[in-house]
Amino acid sequence: MTEPVMVRILGVGMGPQHVTPEVAAALRGVDYVLAADKGGDGDDDGLLRLRREILAAHPGPDGPVEIITVPDPPRNRETGLTATGYEGAVADWHQARAQRYAQVLRERGGTAAFLVWGDPSLYDSTIRVMERVRDLGVALDFEVLPGISAPQLLAARHRIVLHEVGRPVHITTGRRLQEAVAAGLDNIVAMLNPPPERLDLTGLDDWTLWWGANLGAAGERLVAGRLGEVRDAVVQARAAAKAEAGWVMDLFLVRKN
Amino acid sequence: MTEPVMVRILGVGMGPQHVTPEVAAALRGVDYVLAADKGGDGDDDGLLRLRREILAAHPGPDGPVEIITVPDPPRNRETGLTATGYEGAVADWHQARAQRYAQVLRERGGTAAFLVWGDPSLYDSTIRVMERVRDLGVALDFEVLPGISAPQLLAARHRIVLHEVGRPVHITTGRRLQEAVAAGLDNIVAMLNPPPERLDLTGLDDWTLWWGANLGAAGERLVAGRLGEVRDAVVQARAAAKAEAGWVMDLFLVRKN
Repeated sequence: MTEPVMVRILGVGMGPQHVTPEVAAALRGVDYVLAADKGGDGDDDGLLRLRREILAAHPGPDGPVEIITVPDPPRNRETGLTATGYEGAVADWHQARAQRYAQVLRERGGTAAFLVWGDPSLYDSTIRVMERVRDLGVALDFEVLPGISAPQLLAARHRIVLHEVGRPVHITTGRRLQEAVAAGLDNIVAMLNPPPERLDLTGLDDWTLWWGANLGAAGERLVAGRLGEVRDAVVQARAAAKAEAGWVMDLFLVRKN
Repeated sequence: MTEPVMVRILGVGMGPQHVTPEVAAALRGVDYVLAADKGGDGDDDGLLRLRREILAAHPGPDGPVEIITVPDPPRNRETGLTATGYEGAVADWHQARAQRYAQVLRERGGTAAFLVWGDPSLYDSTIRVMERVRDLGVALDFEVLPGISAPQLLAARHRIVLHEVGRPVHITTGRRLQEAVAAGLDNIVAMLNPPPERLDLTGLDDWTLWWGANLGAAGERLVAGRLGEVRDAVVQARAAAKAEAGWVMDLFLVRKN
């Protein structure tokens, strides 16, 4: 009987400035880090480089922890354009990812880690993929450590609270934004946003927008104001972020006045 | 003309293990830390002691940064029992707090910091109180650095994602929980919860509950399961947390199956 593999799912926040002492300590005890190799989008190359920076800043007794890159399965982005198609496509892709990670974890054993950008509890697949790895029969224990998430950094940069006094904040995806508006919600964070031309902002011109791109990284941009008045500023800031960094990820909070 | 006071609002997460490098660096450059002296609840004494621990771990060139405690104005908890009364009571209390902090910031000037438990963007008054201090005529710049929040630590401890794939999570208060359920929301985090006997969980027996108390601190407890089956376990765990730590703060995620 072999020891179960230990997997540490570590939230590293929005960059090296957010690596908590508990994550730094957890990194010192891992044998290797697993990372997806997505085949060279600018975005993913950037994230891999940032992971290497974090590992270099927190070396183990024999130097920086080794990164094992695992080629990422192709993702069907066509069926991903509608919400239901999206969930099915994601499930298939989680399963394909799980099979690839299962193979490496079986071969290497020991203690592995994943460095999750932002926080593992918000729009990140690592926890679900590890549950699937376990379902594939790999003896596995895992633990999760939190990291600063993008909505928190958005709020900090704009120096705002994510909600009015005692009221709620709803966190959803750009593709589900109008669903939330239709349900009567009036204070909404949208993440995983498509490009502006595919994002439906109908009816929100009078709402206040707090928007950010590439928070904590190269190309960071912020825009805030009445949505109807700052649409063009957002499109320009997004293009500028992409031009500067080679990639862009944005999110925003919208609130009805 | 005097220099504006610089105020750093620093999220310290759920304890010393979460103090990010950027917060640690920001602390090294402050002249003093402001903290509310709430007159000796167990809860607040505990938080003041934890703030002292964090400052001792991150001293400036002349040793740990000084903490200036400011007596907190009394809060009308009676009018706070309904949602509208709550918001009015909070506004009065923010204003009274702002007046007290304004006086200290005017007298001391320089660079001040607040150490915010969790994250300044979620159910914390510091940003709003500083806006009021500015409205009182104090020349003030402020910046905000994020910290790990309680919902993130709840998810990490339970090793879950806060939502289903591509779906939303709604973050609200215990007193507004039923409002969210009535609006058709099916995945809800509730914070700032009253004691179990004052918390309305009607209709949620078949939902899944992930509950936690005193996360990251003395008395930490976790309970998960079908809500109707784990109610008693929660009441007992909450009492045990309070007995161990002398105070209790809890939160939970509920999800319809």
